[in-house]
Amino acid sequence: MFYLTIDILGTIAFAISGVLVAMEKKLDIFGVLIIAFVTAVGGGTLRDMLIGNTPVVWMHELVYIFTILGAVIFAILFVNQIKYLRKTLFLFDTIGIGLFTMVGIEKGLSADLMPVMCIILGTITASFGGVIRDILCNEIPVIFHKEIYATACILGGLSYFLLIQLPIDDTYAYSTAILIIILVRILAVKFHIALPNIYRSKGT
Amino acid sequence: MFYLTIDILGTIAFAISGVLVAMEKKLDIFGVLIIAFVTAVGGGTLRDMLIGNTPVVWMHELVYIFTILGAVIFAILFVNQIKYLRKTLFLFDTIGIGLFTMVGIEKGLSADLMPVMCIILGTITASFGGVIRDILCNEIPVIFHKEIYATACILGGLSYFLLIQLPIDDTYAYSTAILIIILVRILAVKFHIALPNIYRSKGT
Amino acid sequence: MFYLTIDILGTIAFAISGVLVAMEKKLDIFGVLIIAFVTAVGGGTLRDMLIGNTPVVWMHELVYIFTILGAVIFAILFVNQIKYLRKTLFLFDTIGIGLFTMVGIEKGLSADLMPVMCIILGTITASFGGVIRDILCNEIPVIFHKEIYATACILGGLSYFLLIQLPIDDTYAYSTAILIIILVRILAVKFHIALPNIYRSKGT
Repeated sequence: MFYLTIDILGTIAFAISGVLVAMEKKLDIFGVLIIAFVTAVGGGTLRDMLIGNTPVVWMHELVYIFTILGAVIFAILFVNQIKYLRKTLFLFDTIGIGLFTMVGIEKGLSADLMPVMCIILGTITASFGGVIRDILCNEIPVIFHKEIYATACILGGLSYFLLIQLPIDDTYAYSTAILIIILVRILAVKFHIALPNIYRSKGT
Repeated sequence: MFYLTIDILGTIAFAISGVLVAMEKKLDIFGVLIIAFVTAVGGGTLRDMLIGNTPVVWMHELVYIFTILGAVIFAILFVNQIKYLRKTLFLFDTIGIGLFTMVGIEKGLSADLMPVMCIILGTITASFGGVIRDILCNEIPVIFHKEIYATACILGGLSYFLLIQLPIDDTYAYSTAILIIILVRILAVKFHIALPNIYRSKGT
Repeated sequence: MFYLTIDILGTIAFAISGVLVAMEKKLDIFGVLIIAFVTAVGGGTLRDMLIGNTPVVWMHELVYIFTILGAVIFAILFVNQIKYLRKTLFLFDTIGIGLFTMVGIEKGLSADLMPVMCIILGTITASFGGVIRDILCNEIPVIFHKEIYATACILGGLSYFLLIQLPIDDTYAYSTAILIIILVRILAVKFHIALPNIYRSKGT
C-alpha cells in the first residue's frame, strides 16, 4: 500500500513533467497524452524489453493508464496554476525517482543479473522516461547535460548493494537506498552541485 | 487473401510516405530505404517487442521486405508523378491504418490483454511507424500536433469491443471497426475536424 | 581469443566515436558516458530485442561495461590528442563493423531466420548503435546521408551466404566476409565512392 502510493505519486509527477514539455512544443491533446504516458512508463518499458519481461508491466495494470489520464487532464486544466506547485512536483518527482530506481534493481535481481547490471536497470527505469520524452519532443535529453539525476540513482543503487552485505533487513536497505537517492538529488539541486566540467572554459 | 491485399496496400502506402519524408531530408538511397522500411513495419515491430512476440513479425515473412523494396524503387523513380497520386495514397494509407489497428488489437487479444491495452496496441501498430520515421528524420512526430489519426484508431477499437458484445459475428465486428476508422479519418480530413485546441489563442 | 580481441577493439572504437559526438554537443560526463555506451552496444541491443534474445547480451558480460568505461575516460582525458589517432580509430571502427555484422548474422542463424533477415540483423548490429547515438544527440543519423557503411555490411553478408554454398569451411567463409566488409569500407572512403545520387542536381 505504501509503495503503491509512492508509485502513483511518482507516476503523477512524471506524467505532469511530460505534459509541461509537450505543451511548450504546442502539441495537440493526443500528443500531450502520449508524451505524458511515455514519460511516466517509458523507463520501465525499456527495462522490461531489455530483460524480456513481456508483456511489459503497464499492460497488466489499469492503474497506470488511469493515473496518467487523470494527471494529464488536471495538468491541462490547471497549467497556469502548476507553476505554484513546482516544489510539490519536484518532491513527487524525486520520490518517484528513488522508488523507480529500486523497482528496477529488484527486477534485475529477479532476472539473476549482476549488481552492476541491476544498478544500470534501476537508472534506466528512473531516467529513460524523460529521455524518450525529450527525443519525441526533438530535444537533446535534459539529463545528459543539466541535472544530477542519474548520479543520484547510481549512488542509491551502490548503497543498496553495500547495505545488503550488512546483517540488516532487506526492507531496511531498500528504504535507506530510496532515501539516499532523494537526499542526493535534493542537496544537489539546493546547493547547485553539478557533475565536474569536462570542458575547458573559454577566456581564462 | 482479402486481408493480405489490404495489408500489402497499407504497407505500400506507409513505405511511400516514408520515402517522401526521407527525400525531403535529402537522405541517400540507403537512408530512404531504411526510413521507408521503418515507417511500414515500425509500429508492428514495437507492438511485438512490447508483448514479447519475438522474433518480430516481419522476420518470418519475405513479403514485407519485397513489397517495401518495390515501393521504394517505384517512389524514387516516379517521385514527381506521385503528387498526382496523393488521393490514392491517402486512401491506401487510411485503409492500412484501419487494418493495422485491428491486427494490433487481435495480437493483444491473443496475449490475453485487457480491451484498453488491446486498443493501445492497435493504435501503436497503426501510428508508431510514422512516429519513428519522424524521429529518425529529426522532426517532432506529425501525429502529435496535426492529424486526427490516432483518434480514428481509438474510436475504431472502442467500436470493435462494443460490437463484439452484440450477438453478431466476429468478422462482422472486425470489418465494421475497420470501416469506422476509415470513415472517421476521411471525414476528419474532408471537414478539417481537429482535436479541441488546448491553448488559448492569442489576441482575443 | 582472437574474436574477443576484435570485439573489444570494435567496442572501443564505437565508444570513442560516441564520446566525440557527445562532447561536440557539450553534454556532461554522464551524458557522454551514456552516448558512448549506446553507440557501442545499441546495435546489438536492438538486435537482441527484435529476436527475443533477452536479457540482452551486454547484461551477462562485465567486459563491455568496463571496456566502454575505460574508453570514455581515455577519450575525455586525451580528447585533443585523439585527432592524431583518427586513422587508428577508423581502422578499429571498420574492423568492428565487420565483426559485428557477422555476429548479428550468426545470431539470426541461431534463431532459424532466413538469410535476408540474417543480413538485416547483421547490418542492424553494426550500424544502429550509431543511429541511436545520432538520435540522442538530435541529429539525422549520419549513415542515412553520408557514409557507405551499411552497404559494406550488406555486401559482406551476401558474400557469406554465397561462400557457405561452396565446399569450404564455415570459419573461412566467416573470415572472408569480415575481410570483404573491411575492404569495401576502406576502398569506399579512400576513393570517395558514394551511393548513386537520387536527386537531380540543380542548375544543369
